[in-house]
Amino acid sequence: MKLYDFALAPNPRRVRMFLAEKGVTIPVVEVNTRQKEQFAPEFAKLNPFCTVPVLELDDGTCIGDSVAICRYIEVLHPEPPLMGRDAREQAIIEMWDRRAELEGVNAAGELVRNAAPMFEGRGIAGVPDGFPQIPALVDRGKKRMARFFDFWNRQLADNAFVAGPDFSIADITSFIAIEFAKRAEVTIPAQCKHVARWYESVSQRPSASA
Amino acid sequence: MKLYDFALAPNPRRVRMFLAEKGVTIPVVEVNTRQKEQFAPEFAKLNPFCTVPVLELDDGTCIGDSVAICRYIEVLHPEPPLMGRDAREQAIIEMWDRRAELEGVNAAGELVRNAAPMFEGRGIAGVPDGFPQIPALVDRGKKRMARFFDFWNRQLADNAFVAGPDFSIADITSFIAIEFAKRAEVTIPAQCKHVARWYESVSQRPSASA
Repeated sequence: MKLYDFALAPNPRRVRMFLAEKGVTIPVVEVNTRQKEQFAPEFAKLNPFCTVPVLELDDGTCIGDSVAICRYIEVLHPEPPLMGRDAREQAIIEMWDRRAELEGVNAAGELVRNAAPMFEGRGIAGVPDGFPQIPALVDRGKKRMARFFDFWNRQLADNAFVAGPDFSIADITSFIAIEFAKRAEVTIPAQCKHVARWYESVSQRPSASA
Repeated sequence: MKLYDFALAPNPRRVRMFLAEKGVTIPVVEVNTRQKEQFAPEFAKLNPFCTVPVLELDDGTCIGDSVAICRYIEVLHPEPPLMGRDAREQAIIEMWDRRAELEGVNAAGELVRNAAPMFEGRGIAGVPDGFPQIPALVDRGKKRMARFFDFWNRQLADNAFVAGPDFSIADITSFIAIEFAKRAEVTIPAQCKHVARWYESVSQRPSASA
């Protein structure tokens, strides 16, 4: 197996944290998206959508999606479980992971991609240009992040982790959403004390520096 | 179990198609989102994000996300498999299902939500108001749908179904993306013959009318 990765991008970090929590090591090929290496024809053969991460299996199959890569690793290495054991746990964790992506990562994404000069003409991931930035999405992204923090504060008031008592992929996704939003100088609001407590505990896990 | 559903919305339809393919029947409670019933306080107790569908389990646990509901059903009723059998199949199907959501459903969503008068002030799902429509997203949604059709045409040139030789949840998600975009009068482009062939075959499955 080979992992096409880029240290500075949020979705590759999601996979690296997942692998670190599992104690799994996979050889890495760096694809520098700041240099637009993901648009090179050789890379587009592996992933026509031109995004990282991509996991290349030994038979040549390419898994070009962060959560699908995590699923593959979860099935091969079930311990510690990060996507739930039984039907109910799996559903609760997937619900929170998808909410963390929709309410968190996507909100941070529209904020950062529509503000940062490096994404000019690339409002949509995986497209070299032709999707101009939309300034109204910067404001909308900020409002959505505020909503995200508010919801997560309520959830984390009653739960040690995002999807319940145990650390899961939903914590990884929530953590990278917050890390991503920092690039646009959006940080945890002072009143969201439960988010701050949880963020501190996740930051201290060895996987946070993966 | 109880399924909170709305006949006219895309994500509930995704779950209904999944259940029909599995041959599973669950009692339904209709939540009319055109009447804004999802914002009623009793419903917000089941799903604070105020979206349908929601699956309420017998112990009161509420699964408020379409794919998480499908996962729950898949684990309890593995036949016929719609999310893959082994690690590799599961990863390939999840990758295509997530691409279908990102490139298809989300593109159709930004197109429809930012154009239709019924979504005025509600550019973001699950929020009663305060997120004005952004006209630039209508054009962007159209361009993204064109990109979706182009990619899907290439994938379906070599594959009977979206994720390979077998029907899967990725076909359901792709199908509802196309059905959703129709509301903004965006349809399969004439040159996308492989998409048209596949769409015709999915339309004829009994689940398409679920």
